[in-house]
Amino acid sequence: MKGKTISLSIAACLICFGIIADEGMWTYDHAPLEQLEKNYGFVPSQAWLDHLRLSSLDMNASASFVSKDGLILTNHHCALGSAQRLSTPERNIVRDGFVAGSPEQEIPIPGMTMQVLESIEDATAAVEGSVKPGSAPAEARAQKEAAIAKMESDYKTRSGKKGQVVALYGGARYAFYKYREYSDIRLVFIPELQAAFFGGDDDNFTYPRYDLDVALLRAYENGKPARVEHFLEVNPKGTKDGDLVFASGCPRETDRLMTYAMLEHLRDVTTPFTLKKMREFESKIKSYGHRGVEHERRGRTVVYFLENYIKSTEGEFAGLKDPAMMSRKKEREDALRAAVDRDPKLKQEFGAAWKEIEDSLKWENDHINDVRHKLDVGTRNLLATAVTMVRYAAEAGKPDAGRLDGFHDAEIEDVVRGIVTPSPVYKDLEEVMLTFILGGKYDALGQDDPYVKSVFQGMRPEALVWEVLTGTKLDDASFRRKLMEKKGKAILKSKDPLLVLARRIDPFLRETEAAYRDNVSAVQEAALTKIARAGFAIYGTDTYPDATGTLRLSFGKIAGFPRNSTLVPPFTTLYGLFDRGYSFGERGDFYIPEAIKAKEKQLDLKTPYNFVCTADITGGNSGSPVVDTEGKLVGLVFDGNAESHPNAYVYDEFQARCVAVDIRAILEIIRKVYGAEWLYKEMIGQ
Amino acid sequence: MKGKTISLSIAACLICFGIIADEGMWTYDHAPLEQLEKNYGFVPSQAWLDHLRLSSLDMNASASFVSKDGLILTNHHCALGSAQRLSTPERNIVRDGFVAGSPEQEIPIPGMTMQVLESIEDATAAVEGSVKPGSAPAEARAQKEAAIAKMESDYKTRSGKKGQVVALYGGARYAFYKYREYSDIRLVFIPELQAAFFGGDDDNFTYPRYDLDVALLRAYENGKPARVEHFLEVNPKGTKDGDLVFASGCPRETDRLMTYAMLEHLRDVTTPFTLKKMREFESKIKSYGHRGVEHERRGRTVVYFLENYIKSTEGEFAGLKDPAMMSRKKEREDALRAAVDRDPKLKQEFGAAWKEIEDSLKWENDHINDVRHKLDVGTRNLLATAVTMVRYAAEAGKPDAGRLDGFHDAEIEDVVRGIVTPSPVYKDLEEVMLTFILGGKYDALGQDDPYVKSVFQGMRPEALVWEVLTGTKLDDASFRRKLMEKKGKAILKSKDPLLVLARRIDPFLRETEAAYRDNVSAVQEAALTKIARAGFAIYGTDTYPDATGTLRLSFGKIAGFPRNSTLVPPFTTLYGLFDRGYSFGERGDFYIPEAIKAKEKQLDLKTPYNFVCTADITGGNSGSPVVDTEGKLVGLVFDGNAESHPNAYVYDEFQARCVAVDIRAILEIIRKVYGAEWLYKEMIGQ
Repeated sequence: MKGKTISLSIAACLICFGIIADEGMWTYDHAPLEQLEKNYGFVPSQAWLDHLRLSSLDMNASASFVSKDGLILTNHHCALGSAQRLSTPERNIVRDGFVAGSPEQEIPIPGMTMQVLESIEDATAAVEGSVKPGSAPAEARAQKEAAIAKMESDYKTRSGKKGQVVALYGGARYAFYKYREYSDIRLVFIPELQAAFFGGDDDNFTYPRYDLDVALLRAYENGKPARVEHFLEVNPKGTKDGDLVFASGCPRETDRLMTYAMLEHLRDVTTPFTLKKMREFESKIKSYGHRGVEHERRGRTVVYFLENYIKSTEGEFAGLKDPAMMSRKKEREDALRAAVDRDPKLKQEFGAAWKEIEDSLKWENDHINDVRHKLDVGTRNLLATAVTMVRYAAEAGKPDAGRLDGFHDAEIEDVVRGIVTPSPVYKDLEEVMLTFILGGKYDALGQDDPYVKSVFQGMRPEALVWEVLTGTKLDDASFRRKLMEKKGKAILKSKDPLLVLARRIDPFLRETEAAYRDNVSAVQEAALTKIARAGFAIYGTDTYPDATGTLRLSFGKIAGFPRNSTLVPPFTTLYGLFDRGYSFGERGDFYIPEAIKAKEKQLDLKTPYNFVCTADITGGNSGSPVVDTEGKLVGLVFDGNAESHPNAYVYDEFQARCVAVDIRAILEIIRKVYGAEWLYKEMIGQ
Repeated sequence: MKGKTISLSIAACLICFGIIADEGMWTYDHAPLEQLEKNYGFVPSQAWLDHLRLSSLDMNASASFVSKDGLILTNHHCALGSAQRLSTPERNIVRDGFVAGSPEQEIPIPGMTMQVLESIEDATAAVEGSVKPGSAPAEARAQKEAAIAKMESDYKTRSGKKGQVVALYGGARYAFYKYREYSDIRLVFIPELQAAFFGGDDDNFTYPRYDLDVALLRAYENGKPARVEHFLEVNPKGTKDGDLVFASGCPRETDRLMTYAMLEHLRDVTTPFTLKKMREFESKIKSYGHRGVEHERRGRTVVYFLENYIKSTEGEFAGLKDPAMMSRKKEREDALRAAVDRDPKLKQEFGAAWKEIEDSLKWENDHINDVRHKLDVGTRNLLATAVTMVRYAAEAGKPDAGRLDGFHDAEIEDVVRGIVTPSPVYKDLEEVMLTFILGGKYDALGQDDPYVKSVFQGMRPEALVWEVLTGTKLDDASFRRKLMEKKGKAILKSKDPLLVLARRIDPFLRETEAAYRDNVSAVQEAALTKIARAGFAIYGTDTYPDATGTLRLSFGKIAGFPRNSTLVPPFTTLYGLFDRGYSFGERGDFYIPEAIKAKEKQLDLKTPYNFVCTADITGGNSGSPVVDTEGKLVGLVFDGNAESHPNAYVYDEFQARCVAVDIRAILEIIRKVYGAEWLYKEMIGQ
């Protein structure tokens, strides 16, 4: 089962009422054939669907094969972390970009893998059958988790391949996804940051947009470019206003099954707190970046992550505060509840679900300090790594079924890789992050809280962080590797101060996680499963499940939208890049990328640069290929506009749009700006 | 007194609290020196102010002299009506534009005049002194109007020049404005409609914008280009982000003195009704335009007027519905009322004002059908002309003091000119307009209403309109001229069916106008004067009056603004015109003007095209020159963005912006696209 914990509780489905227009992130075994025929008079064949699925790649974000020689198209921002790891003070790939002159020059990316979804099989009976009758929600969950872990590891043992059980429709269905994995991935082309991210944080999640958010990678097998049977042919003519298009990618999470009460809780409790925290965190990291150019470079990925997160959360928050959206949600829910209440059998089976969720929210409110401050230690920092190591040491020796979620046999390889893969760690940046994270807990809980007493041992956060960071060797990947190779005891006995600290934190983490699971997530999961089933019973099963980070098919039309009392166009052009740059006098993040500016006269500025369509996408869809009805590549998803963020809860196509790079701009620029004629030819199949 | 009737009731002032930042449309005898020094460290000299005032022109919109030979810069849309009148099926100046090759080719524009404001004198004592003690509001108003009319006509008789008494600060102050008039105005340059109005109604009142909303006219005296002492020198280097700039023009009306109750009434009663009506009217005229190309041309000015009106009203409506704006207004008012109530003398003198306004609103609500349907016959149609003729015939013979407002000696010349000036009338278009206007009254009042009985004489609106339009000769300017020359009786006895109809309507109009004046407008005027005086008493007089259609000075800085979770830039460039055109595939109103497209390679596309600044402007400011601190011309106001419309009631500079054409684009295009090197040289003073 994919490494999701809390988010599983809201992996759910849209039910209730008719699905509207271009709504839905459909599983490939349940494509929206009826909707497509009705709305567009187009019905994709099974071969069409199979080809698109087998050309699509799961890389935790999305990607696709675009040549028979394993060339992969994804976003710049999906490859940015790799580019940063491959960068050195001498060779700044992030700032300057990179283009291989030939396959020999392509640079291996350590740790990166790509998966092709080879097949989908129903697993509902197998998972449900594992639950003993009469089990409480948390027990049932544990039994299912154990069964799922066993199915995944059995498959691994049997086939040597990766398999994954995916809970769909709020756990009302399960499916077994089988993958083919490519683990030798190399960097072929990445433009300079400014071309990919023109407009910076200001233009992030907005449209009109002028970004070349593109990277080319290549899958290798046995040291040679992989020969792939399924890849997307490029349509160099692109698409046009009103055309039907498809996006194939891995949307991470939507919450369309969430109840109204859960959305209110998000609106009033969770989101305002999170936003405040993240804004504070961002300002700390930005201050760090102001220390100098090198500091700015070191902090860049974190800042980028935070900016992204904050703006997207602000977009969702706007939706939650929108009375129209909330009342649409309420109407749907009221109708379903009324229908359930009218049928005594359904009422008996599902009627209590909404109340159960309300109770779980009450529990969360009653324990809000624990939930906010004892449930995590952040991500992407050395303390989080230390905690994962400690947990690995404790869990790896246990029988598979008894382990913490995330440490089952099928997952453990990813855990180990995440820890031992070398990646630059900067202790001064870690100091800023850990002081913020631990300081927040210290201040909120107070010195007398058992957590603070035990974790901080009478020290101030600054002093504690200084002590552990000065003493730790965990920033050294080879030190981590050595510890991991020695397994359990070496880690659990290590005197490395960061591991010592992690061992003080872990018991509280486990205790809070267990309480939260028993009282909140497992309860909500079970209740949402009921609600999903109630929906099936009343409205039928012709629908799609909430996003689960696995491969989905979305569709929509190329379409501008009304805003600010005028129209936003369906496309932008290269002219617009120059306009927006000069409009701001090229200040801040609005300077025109040097490489493109230098070739202005050679470029056809009419070339469509970015475009928008109504396809239903979300985070994780970044890098999804956009194809036309012939299955040919016309664009590359890289964003949703701010208006699309409330789509996490309720789909709306009035202003919400998927934002993509136009294939014509990719071809024009890769050839005329970067001079990569060989890649241009490979992409157009010459 | 300028021909304002109902709008006078809301000609008022901003008082209460400190004025914020760049707020204010200041009279030239009361320039915001203190604010300018405080905010910008710049204090214009008296000579600086005089020069700008004497270079500015009042043409019912705004304009300015830009060369010593009387060259005048204004907006395309301020000259559009003239261009339409000068157009014929053979020479379509509106569609194709016009550029004179030399002064000899400049085309006289019948009926157009321009005024320079030569001096301002206080007239408060003279006007106030005319009111007999103890007069009721409506009586006092009549006495003041008579005194004002006499002052204006005495001045006319004495000097042969135009003078105007302006009621300022809600009637708490009066000033006498003396003008120099230019009445031989010729068309020098006007671009094709598409260059001036790229983006059409969609982009109207929006920004970013890409419009060459520019026209050049010339004042003549004695058949030769006027030699003018004061004109604005052009600054060919333009302006830049953050710069202080000034706009000098004639804002028509703001309502910042309106009380909270009046705004509520606007929000809940007046505006929703007006918007509905105008949208219906627009759809009728557009349907008419769909009959053919020639029909579209005929209806164009009306459609343009309506689109403008609707979008601007929608912008204001958005402000009225914005709880933040309304509560800002409420807070200011509550503070003023509390201060008045605390002082027994002020309470006695001014305390009742708010209640008096509330009573007037109640009266209006109680007579809403009369107010909505008996108070006017629209504007810009042949029935309105007929009604004006009938009223002229009845009023012109009376002693000046006893006449209806708008027909005093000082005004009568404008009235006559408006009637006799030839301008194309299309009976089929008139049919659509009159059927809509009269049909609306018929349907709303019902067949049994005395108004309907008397006006329609048992006929259906369609039949009545058909009958009067078939029979009338009022579409012929020479027929109108002949009747007007014969004065009174000829009009009052004429059997022309449209004049007959006008004579049936006029008594109801007079009756309703009188009732409305006595119960609403005069009451509100008097109450607002009290409120303005209360404001003076509490906050002092260092403020500016509400707009009155007369010359004002606004100031502000060049500044973009935040919107849609990104930044809107301070400037746009010519690149953006091409981007926006191609982004829509040049559909609809988004095709790139042919003339500009043809010269793309010659143009420097980096040239700033339009820009935004925080200057406090409103309708009527169209055509205002934008000058820098040296008093040199850097731009031309042509619009406010949609976010600026609530400025009618409360100024805000967060997103509200004045939109201008950049002088650099005017020079670049006039020279390279239109080949008018001689005009370019004249403007830059070579």
